[in-house]
Amino acid sequence: MRNTDIEKASEALWKNALPHLSVDCVVFGYHQGSFNVLLAKMKGDNGWILPGGYIQKTESIDDAAKRILFERSGAEKVFLEVFGVFGEPNRSQDYFVEYDDNLWHKMRFVTIGYYAVIDQSQVTPVPDMFSDACEWMPVYELPEMVMDHKQIIEKALEKLRDQLYHKPIGYNLLPEIFTLPQLQALYEKIMNQKFNRGNFYRKIMKENILIKQGEAKTGGAHKAPHLYKFDPAIYTK
Amino acid sequence: MRNTDIEKASEALWKNALPHLSVDCVVFGYHQGSFNVLLAKMKGDNGWILPGGYIQKTESIDDAAKRILFERSGAEKVFLEVFGVFGEPNRSQDYFVEYDDNLWHKMRFVTIGYYAVIDQSQVTPVPDMFSDACEWMPVYELPEMVMDHKQIIEKALEKLRDQLYHKPIGYNLLPEIFTLPQLQALYEKIMNQKFNRGNFYRKIMKENILIKQGEAKTGGAHKAPHLYKFDPAIYTK
Repeated sequence: MRNTDIEKASEALWKNALPHLSVDCVVFGYHQGSFNVLLAKMKGDNGWILPGGYIQKTESIDDAAKRILFERSGAEKVFLEVFGVFGEPNRSQDYFVEYDDNLWHKMRFVTIGYYAVIDQSQVTPVPDMFSDACEWMPVYELPEMVMDHKQIIEKALEKLRDQLYHKPIGYNLLPEIFTLPQLQALYEKIMNQKFNRGNFYRKIMKENILIKQGEAKTGGAHKAPHLYKFDPAIYTK
Repeated sequence: MRNTDIEKASEALWKNALPHLSVDCVVFGYHQGSFNVLLAKMKGDNGWILPGGYIQKTESIDDAAKRILFERSGAEKVFLEVFGVFGEPNRSQDYFVEYDDNLWHKMRFVTIGYYAVIDQSQVTPVPDMFSDACEWMPVYELPEMVMDHKQIIEKALEKLRDQLYHKPIGYNLLPEIFTLPQLQALYEKIMNQKFNRGNFYRKIMKENILIKQGEAKTGGAHKAPHLYKFDPAIYTK
């Protein structure tokens, strides 16, 4: 696509959107022990960004977040939730060099942060017309990012860690029935630290979010591991 | 103050503020068993509103929230935290009758919800120039409110309840040293239900947020109640 087409498309977007407001989506993905975040790379920019965009004048902010994530990355049916708002007046200063409230691409933006945690095998990222790339990148080895997007990811990670022992975060990330070592591997990735198995077991059982299932059948000499699933009552609460 | 002065002051505020964006503060207050929320009443309006206002072009959103709460209510040094963003396109429709993005007082606003929980004896509400009244009102007997402000309070209450057993919410609301019956009374008010004493005791102890203190001295026949304080390690985490 030629640059003039991109400019025209941008102008059409701006004309129908609320000024000064944007949405950025932090989508964490987990699959087979790998913990990632969905990032995009705009044409002509060096750094990576979160999939983000603007709120149409007639659109709710939740609908805008869903639409933006889909348009930027191809990800559908992702449950997104607000986790923070980023509104330092100088948050784009290094990026824009100079503010100008009369020019859309130089005005101050307050961005609403949405986050989600998904099994990344369910999403094949697709770059949109404004992006060169859209990819899963490792949370603990982020590439160079523009503006405050790295801090936005850190804040989302903080929120995720805060909820880890109180909400069934693993519900969308593990098979329906899983072993405690599988759950421990997920939690270790999200917390970025190793746990003592006994301590982890006691801590997670104390939260009452798991239901014990029948034991896995085994013909061998070793005892089969116990199987668990998340308590659906907690999930729907 | 005459209406023309109010109009002039409003225009000055609008000129320097970000359009389409507002901040609303849900400040819950607790004192001696009474659970309230801080509300204001605008001159010329029938319903009550949350203390709210606009973000100055050069101001961070956190600073705007602090300033707005102080200007509207006189409340200072309140720790405010974002708990949600309210951005349904029609959230002010009943109030404005008709939208007009060229008129400040009729344009669509997305509002950022901040909340706080304080000992209300520390705050004496003072109405500002735009308000007829600023008062503590009982959370479970709210007066008629404008727009979606009642739903915003409900959402803040949901957030507060969600954190009640995981964070030392009572830290600012109870004396430094307290009894479990005192803590139970606070939790019952916030959850709006009565608890069985034994169940409450077990649930709260399981969270490891309390430290047991020496027993209160007593000369009578009854056993003195145990005294507790919140674990400062949890509070600063």
